[in-house]
Amino acid sequence: MIKVGLLGAGRIGNVHAKSIAANADSQLVAVSDVNQAAAEKLAAAYGAQARSSQDIINDRSIDAVLIATSTDTHAGLIEAAAAAGKAVLCEKPVDLSLERALACQAAVAASGKPVMIGFNRRFDPNFAAVKRALDAGEIGKGELLSITSFDPAPPPVSYIQVSGGLFRDMAIHDFDMACWIFGGAPETVTAIGSSIVDPAIGEAGDVDTAVITLHYADGRIAVIKNSRRAVYGYDQRLELLGSTGLLQAGNVLENTVNKVTTAGATSAKPEYFFLERYMRAYEAEWRAFIDAIQAGTGYPVTLQDGVNALAVAEAATLSCKTGKTVRLKDGRPVLEG
Amino acid sequence: MIKVGLLGAGRIGNVHAKSIAANADSQLVAVSDVNQAAAEKLAAAYGAQARSSQDIINDRSIDAVLIATSTDTHAGLIEAAAAAGKAVLCEKPVDLSLERALACQAAVAASGKPVMIGFNRRFDPNFAAVKRALDAGEIGKGELLSITSFDPAPPPVSYIQVSGGLFRDMAIHDFDMACWIFGGAPETVTAIGSSIVDPAIGEAGDVDTAVITLHYADGRIAVIKNSRRAVYGYDQRLELLGSTGLLQAGNVLENTVNKVTTAGATSAKPEYFFLERYMRAYEAEWRAFIDAIQAGTGYPVTLQDGVNALAVAEAATLSCKTGKTVRLKDGRPVLEG
Amino acid sequence: MIKVGLLGAGRIGNVHAKSIAANADSQLVAVSDVNQAAAEKLAAAYGAQARSSQDIINDRSIDAVLIATSTDTHAGLIEAAAAAGKAVLCEKPVDLSLERALACQAAVAASGKPVMIGFNRRFDPNFAAVKRALDAGEIGKGELLSITSFDPAPPPVSYIQVSGGLFRDMAIHDFDMACWIFGGAPETVTAIGSSIVDPAIGEAGDVDTAVITLHYADGRIAVIKNSRRAVYGYDQRLELLGSTGLLQAGNVLENTVNKVTTAGATSAKPEYFFLERYMRAYEAEWRAFIDAIQAGTGYPVTLQDGVNALAVAEAATLSCKTGKTVRLKDGRPVLEG
Amino acid sequence: MIKVGLLGAGRIGNVHAKSIAANADSQLVAVSDVNQAAAEKLAAAYGAQARSSQDIINDRSIDAVLIATSTDTHAGLIEAAAAAGKAVLCEKPVDLSLERALACQAAVAASGKPVMIGFNRRFDPNFAAVKRALDAGEIGKGELLSITSFDPAPPPVSYIQVSGGLFRDMAIHDFDMACWIFGGAPETVTAIGSSIVDPAIGEAGDVDTAVITLHYADGRIAVIKNSRRAVYGYDQRLELLGSTGLLQAGNVLENTVNKVTTAGATSAKPEYFFLERYMRAYEAEWRAFIDAIQAGTGYPVTLQDGVNALAVAEAATLSCKTGKTVRLKDGRPVLEG
Repeated sequence: MIKVGLLGAGRIGNVHAKSIAANADSQLVAVSDVNQAAAEKLAAAYGAQARSSQDIINDRSIDAVLIATSTDTHAGLIEAAAAAGKAVLCEKPVDLSLERALACQAAVAASGKPVMIGFNRRFDPNFAAVKRALDAGEIGKGELLSITSFDPAPPPVSYIQVSGGLFRDMAIHDFDMACWIFGGAPETVTAIGSSIVDPAIGEAGDVDTAVITLHYADGRIAVIKNSRRAVYGYDQRLELLGSTGLLQAGNVLENTVNKVTTAGATSAKPEYFFLERYMRAYEAEWRAFIDAIQAGTGYPVTLQDGVNALAVAEAATLSCKTGKTVRLKDGRPVLEG
Repeated sequence: MIKVGLLGAGRIGNVHAKSIAANADSQLVAVSDVNQAAAEKLAAAYGAQARSSQDIINDRSIDAVLIATSTDTHAGLIEAAAAAGKAVLCEKPVDLSLERALACQAAVAASGKPVMIGFNRRFDPNFAAVKRALDAGEIGKGELLSITSFDPAPPPVSYIQVSGGLFRDMAIHDFDMACWIFGGAPETVTAIGSSIVDPAIGEAGDVDTAVITLHYADGRIAVIKNSRRAVYGYDQRLELLGSTGLLQAGNVLENTVNKVTTAGATSAKPEYFFLERYMRAYEAEWRAFIDAIQAGTGYPVTLQDGVNALAVAEAATLSCKTGKTVRLKDGRPVLEG
Repeated sequence: MIKVGLLGAGRIGNVHAKSIAANADSQLVAVSDVNQAAAEKLAAAYGAQARSSQDIINDRSIDAVLIATSTDTHAGLIEAAAAAGKAVLCEKPVDLSLERALACQAAVAASGKPVMIGFNRRFDPNFAAVKRALDAGEIGKGELLSITSFDPAPPPVSYIQVSGGLFRDMAIHDFDMACWIFGGAPETVTAIGSSIVDPAIGEAGDVDTAVITLHYADGRIAVIKNSRRAVYGYDQRLELLGSTGLLQAGNVLENTVNKVTTAGATSAKPEYFFLERYMRAYEAEWRAFIDAIQAGTGYPVTLQDGVNALAVAEAATLSCKTGKTVRLKDGRPVLEG
Repeated sequence: MIKVGLLGAGRIGNVHAKSIAANADSQLVAVSDVNQAAAEKLAAAYGAQARSSQDIINDRSIDAVLIATSTDTHAGLIEAAAAAGKAVLCEKPVDLSLERALACQAAVAASGKPVMIGFNRRFDPNFAAVKRALDAGEIGKGELLSITSFDPAPPPVSYIQVSGGLFRDMAIHDFDMACWIFGGAPETVTAIGSSIVDPAIGEAGDVDTAVITLHYADGRIAVIKNSRRAVYGYDQRLELLGSTGLLQAGNVLENTVNKVTTAGATSAKPEYFFLERYMRAYEAEWRAFIDAIQAGTGYPVTLQDGVNALAVAEAATLSCKTGKTVRLKDGRPVLEG
C-alpha cells in the first residue's frame, strides 16, 4: 500500500483524492492547501490528515506526493519532494517559464528521483487507442496530425492575465499530445492567433483563437486548432493521416440518444468540460503512476515531456507575436531568419 | 439498342422514362396512358410516340415493355405482353389477389417468356451491399432479420380503401426483401396491427402500424416494422444478425452536414420519400433488366418472387384479422390451429 | 449515513459493494454469502463484517439490505427483510414463478414496507434520456417501440436448464423496459422462438433467438428481439417511433476511435457485457435507492414492476410453446382462442 | 433551349456533356478537342458535331461554351469566347500564372461579358448546406474554418512537373472554398509543406503534404490540410467553428452499410475520387450556369473568384518556399518582414 500526500485541495485536488482512494494500492494519508479549511475538509472525507506541504514532504512514512497546487509553486515543490526521495506526480505545467523548468529538471536529475508530469490526456482511452494503433503499425507511418482543442467558454480575464497566455495555459496539452504521438519535439513552430471571441482577451495581450503548425525534421506535420469558446462543450478530437490509413478519436458524448424529427436528427453534445471528459483519464493516470512505482519501471510521462511541451509553448508564443516561424534549437526557441 | 414501350405515364412512369433514356442500350419509342395528354407529354419529352397499350404490345419492332399502369391492370398486361413475346418488366405487385397472380404466373409459364417484377429496393446500393456481404459469408449464417419500413405520411383514406391494405400495399416490399435476403418464403406468418396514426384508417378496415414476424422452417426469423407515418421522412433500414456478426443498412440522408450547438448535434433527415431514396435503385433496376436481356440470362427478380411476396401479404392480412399465426402451405395461406 | 447489509458476495454483489462504498450517504457494514470465504473477502475489502443473512436481517442497527443472492432465495429474503422493517433493494427477478412472486407481493404489502427491484437498465443514462424525452413530449405519443437485446455469448447449457428459459432469464429486462416506457403491462403477448444458435439449447427445452410482440390496449406495439449470441458484444438498443418523431438509444462503444483504411472505416465494438455496459447504471440505481430512502419518497422501481415483467415473461413462454397469442387477464396469462 | 459548345472531350468534358444533355434547358450541339477522335466519339454519343474550338466560338447560333481543355489554353479561350459574346463556363484554374489571369480578367471586363469559373465544390450539396446555414446565422459569426482535402493517390511525377505545384493544382479548390465561406480573400497566407508521401515529388520541386493558414483582417482564421495520398479515398471535409456553434460537412460514403464483428464496426469508405464524390455537384453547377443565363442574373462564381484563389495559391507557394508569411496587397502576394 503506497502512502500518499496530496498537495493542493482545490478542484483538481479533489479529483485526484478520489482516484487515490479508489485505487486498491494507494492510500491518501495527508492533504495540504494554502486554504486550511479546504485541506481539512478534503482530508476528513477520506480519513486523512490536514498538514503543511513541508510537513508532508518531510514525513518519511509518506511514499509519494501528488502536486496539485498553483502553477507557480510546482517547480519548487517538485525539487523539494524529489530531494526528499518521494515518488512525485505533478500537475502540468512544470512552470510558466522554460528557464525555471529547465532549472527544475537539473535539480531533479541531481536528486536521482524521476518525476511524472500529469498530462492526463495521454490516459484518455480514446487518445490512448490512437497511440496504440499507430505504434502497432495500423496506419503505417504517421504523416499529418490534426488536433482540435476547444474549451467551452473563456475563463475570466483576470485568469487570462496570469495564465501565461493561451499557448502555455491551454495549448500546452496539445503540444504534449503532438510530441507524444510523434515521439518528440518538432523542429519549427509557427503560430497564428486572434482575439476574436472576446476583445478583452486581446486587450490583456492574449489571443483566444489560434492555429499552430509543428514541422518535424523528417517532414511530418502537426496542426493544432484552439479556441477558448465552443458553446456546445469541450471539443477534444484528434486525427492522424498515415501512409496506409487515417485514425480519428472523437468526442465523448453525454449519451447515445438520437432524436429524429422534422427538425433533423439530434444527438447529444460532447461532455461539457475536462472534469467530465477526462474523469476516466485521471483515474488511469493515477493507476499508471502507482503501477510504475510498484513495478520499478520508468514513468509514462517524464519531466522531459513537461519541458518539451513548455518549449513548444514558448516558441508558439514568440511566433504568434512576431509573425515569424520559430526554431527549437537545443530545446530552446530561436527566431528564424 | 433495345426498343422500349412504356405503359403508364404517371409519377413512376416518368421516373422509368428517364432511366430508359439515360441507359445507352435502351431507347424509349412509345408511351401509353389512360390519360392521353399525359402519354403525349411524356412521349414528347423523350422523342417517343404516344400510342395505346395494345398497339405497343402488338408492335413487333418493340422489344420490351415496362408496365407502370394501375395495379388492377398489371396481370392482364403481363399476360398480353408475354404472349406477344416481349421482354417484360412490371411494377409490383402482380395483383392484389394471390389467385389472380397465380393464374398470371400459369399463363406466363405457358408463353415461355419470363417476366421481371419491379422490386426496386433490391437494387438500392445499401440493401444490395448487405445481400452481397451475407452471400460472401461475412457474418456467417443469417439468423435474425429486422426491417424498418416507415412512410413519411399516410395516403388519403380514399387510397387506403382500394390499396388492398397495408400488408399488400406497403409491407409487400418488405416481404420481398425478407424472401430475397433469406432465399425464399417463410413457413409461418404472424402479424399484429393497430390503427393508431389515424382512426379513419381503422374505420376503413385497415391498420397503419404493424409488426409482422416471419418464421422460417430452419428457425430463422424475420421481423418487419411498418408505420404509415414517420414525420421525419422515409425510414428504410434493415439489420441482420448472423452467427459471426451483424449487418446494418442505414437511411440515406439529405446531406452529410452536422451542426453542433447548445441544443445538441443535428444532422440531416432521411431522404423524404421513395422517389428521392430509391432514384439510384430505379436506374440500377432498369440497367439490370437490360443487362439480363442482352446477356440472355434469367432476371434478377422473377414472377415467382412477386407471387411469394403476395402470398406473405395475404397471410399477414389474415393473421392480423384473426389474431392467429398463418402457415404457408404449397404457397397458399392456411390458418393454424 | 445509511447502514447497509449486502446479501450475496458473487459477481454482482461485488459490483454493488463498490457502489455502496462510493456513495457518500451509505456505508457497507455487513456481507453474507453461502460461500463464507467470498463473504469474508468482500467484507474485508470495505471494512465490513461477514455475517449470516439472518443475522443481518435481525440486526436493528442496519437500515437497508441489498439482496444479490441466487434467484430462488429472493422472495424469501424480501419477505424476511421487509418484515424486519428494512429498506430493501432486490436484484431481479423476484422469482421464476409468477405465483411465488404474487405471494411475495402480498406478504410485503402486509409488512407495509415497499421494496425496490433492481431493473438496472432503467438507470442507464441512455435509456433514461429516452424516457425523459418521451415524457417531455419530444416525440409526441409513443406508438411503436423496438428493443434489441442480444447477449455476447450463450451461457452453459447447465445454466440454461435452471434459468427459467430465455423469456424469464434474459427477456425479462426487456419486458420491464417496455412496461416502463409504455407505463404498464400489455394486453396480449405473442412470442416466436428458435434454437438456432446452439441445438443443445433447444434440446434443453429452451430457445436462443426470439421475437416477442406486446400489444397494448390502446393500439401501441412493442417488439423485442433477443439472441443469446452477438459475437461483437452486448447489443442493447432501443428505438421508439412517436407521432412527431423517433428516439433511438444506441450502444455504448469501447472508445470513440475510427480507423479508415482500404478495408473501410472501423470503429469500436459495444462494451462487451453487462458489467461494462451498465456499470454507470448500477451506481445510479444505488443512488436512486438511497435518495428515495432519504427523501421518504416511493421507489422508482416497485415490486409491482417486478411482478409485471414476470407475468409478461410467463405469457411469452406460453405463447412460444403453443404458437398462440396470450392475453394478460388480471395480471395472469391466459391462452387466446 | 440554350445551345452549347463544349471545348475539351477528356474525362471532365465527358462529365459535363452528360450534365448538358440531362438538363432540359440546354442542348449539346458541338464538341472540340485536340484529339479529333475523342471529339467525334463524344459528339456522336449526344447527337452533336465535332468541330474546332475556333469554329464553335465563331458560330453565332451557339449561345454558350464550356471550356474543359488543358489549363494552359483556358485564359485564351475565355478571352476569345467572351469577345464573341458567348456565355462562358470555364473549368478552374483560369491559368497557372496570376499575371496571366489578371490580364484575362482585364480583357473579359472590356468585352462586357462576365464569365463563370467552375469551382464545382461550391455546388456540392454538403458544402452548400454549410454555407446556407452560416449565412442564415445558425452558428453566429464564423471564426475558425478547417478544410481537409486529401486525394486518394498522387498523380504521376510527370503531371506534378507541369501542374504548377500542389498549391495551384490541388489546394486552389480549398482556397476558393475558404474565400467563398469567408466572403473574400485573406490578408496573410502561411504555408508549410513536406514531400513525405513520395520523395520523387520533392525532387520535382513540389510538396505532397501541406498545411496552409489564412488569416483574415478581422481575425478569422482558415486552415487547410492537404495530402496527395489518403489510401481510403477522396477525403473532402470542412468544419467551421462559429460564435454559437459548429458546422461540419462530412464525406459522402459509398453506402450506408455497417458491419459489426469481433473486429469492430466497419462502414464504407468515402467515394473514391472527384468524379464519384462531385457528380451531383457538376450537375448542379451546370444547372446554376443555365439558370443564371436564363434569369439574366450574375454568375454564382466569377472570374474574380478565380483570380482570388490563384492569388492565394501563389502566396502559399511563396510562403512554403521561403518559410515566411506572405501578405496579399492589392490582390498580389508580397513577402512579409
